Amino acid sequence: MSLIEDLNWRYATKRMNGQKVPQEKVDYILNAIRLAPTSFGLQPFTVLVIESEELRKKIQPVAYNQPQIFEASHLLVFAAWTDVTEQQIDAYMADVAQERGIDVANLAGFKNSIAGMAERLTPEQRSNWAARQAYIAFGIGLAAAAEQKVDATPMEGFDPVGLDEVLGLKEKGLHAVTIMPLGYRDEANDQLAHAKKVRRAKEQLFIQL
Amino acid sequence: MSLIEDLNWRYATKRMNGQKVPQEKVDYILNAIRLAPTSFGLQPFTVLVIESEELRKKIQPVAYNQPQIFEASHLLVFAAWTDVTEQQIDAYMADVAQERGIDVANLAGFKNSIAGMAERLTPEQRSNWAARQAYIAFGIGLAAAAEQKVDATPMEGFDPVGLDEVLGLKEKGLHAVTIMPLGYRDEANDQLAHAKKVRRAKEQLFIQL
Repeated sequence: MSLIEDLNWRYATKRMNGQKVPQEKVDYILNAIRLAPTSFGLQPFTVLVIESEELRKKIQPVAYNQPQIFEASHLLVFAAWTDVTEQQIDAYMADVAQERGIDVANLAGFKNSIAGMAERLTPEQRSNWAARQAYIAFGIGLAAAAEQKVDATPMEGFDPVGLDEVLGLKEKGLHAVTIMPLGYRDEANDQLAHAKKVRRAKEQLFIQL
Repeated sequence: MSLIEDLNWRYATKRMNGQKVPQEKVDYILNAIRLAPTSFGLQPFTVLVIESEELRKKIQPVAYNQPQIFEASHLLVFAAWTDVTEQQIDAYMADVAQERGIDVANLAGFKNSIAGMAERLTPEQRSNWAARQAYIAFGIGLAAAAEQKVDATPMEGFDPVGLDEVLGLKEKGLHAVTIMPLGYRDEANDQLAHAKKVRRAKEQLFIQL
């Protein structure tokens, strides 16, 4: 199937049937997320891969009791960096140097570009910049899930402060930005399972110049 | 090819060879962008599809003279809504009603959910919320381009105020958030064409819970 067919197959799954997604499919989706491009290649986010029932119980009230919290096989919580630290940039420089066989000293210009970008932004802008990078990976993860015939849907409906507390994200310099539940549609109980997809007309969404 | 293979094929193309991407491939990528899921299905963004040489000349100085501005076949400028207006929500409700054969009066609850979400956010948060939706579509567009063996790369390096001015976006209630150049890699002149892909280790990027 082509990506277009996959995207037409997928929909915003509101009810899932609790069936487990095989580990190799979860790994495939995570691999796609890992391969997503990000600004400078910095990947300024962490993805929490949640199966724990105990943790789902704690997430439920801060996610407005949405049924996917328990009906999904896995919950992927995308948590963006709240700031960009020199330590994080240095860790990335070490990775680049090692992978490409370059002396880290030769990456000083690259390091300065990243640090300069971070410095020019306000703390809120840095946090939003990191969130946007997470969303690129999120989009690619949704495409990967659809290709694997695993249902997934963006879940932004949660109390961000509450979720950060439940997951201890603030202490890690992270903040939750969106959740991707992975699982399988419960067609009998999901009103949206057979609803026609609605998208803005091409003439509205695109401007040719 | 699988999406994983496509993602390994793609890279952050810094130099392109000016070759035109066939219209059917451009349409395919735009179609994927159009099918991307967004919060409430609202698609709070517009994508400018730019071929005009004259416009590229004006974009060049506000995009730090990056060569892809001219070497790309098409520039897709993702411009997010700066605000969410009742008129925009109503237009979407009309689309949903028509596509799904529902009386628009029966969508009052849905409309209130969207309006309520928008009201709870500050203007800056609304603008960032819209940008994030554009980034989901951006990620899916990158996946579609890779599937079509069209090179594409996120370009966030531009003066946002300057680009909005060049494209007259402010008057349209839009603001540019990212650019996706579409084209073909110039392997001989792109230092990154054969560079090893660097990604954070799985143990760093993912937390299993």
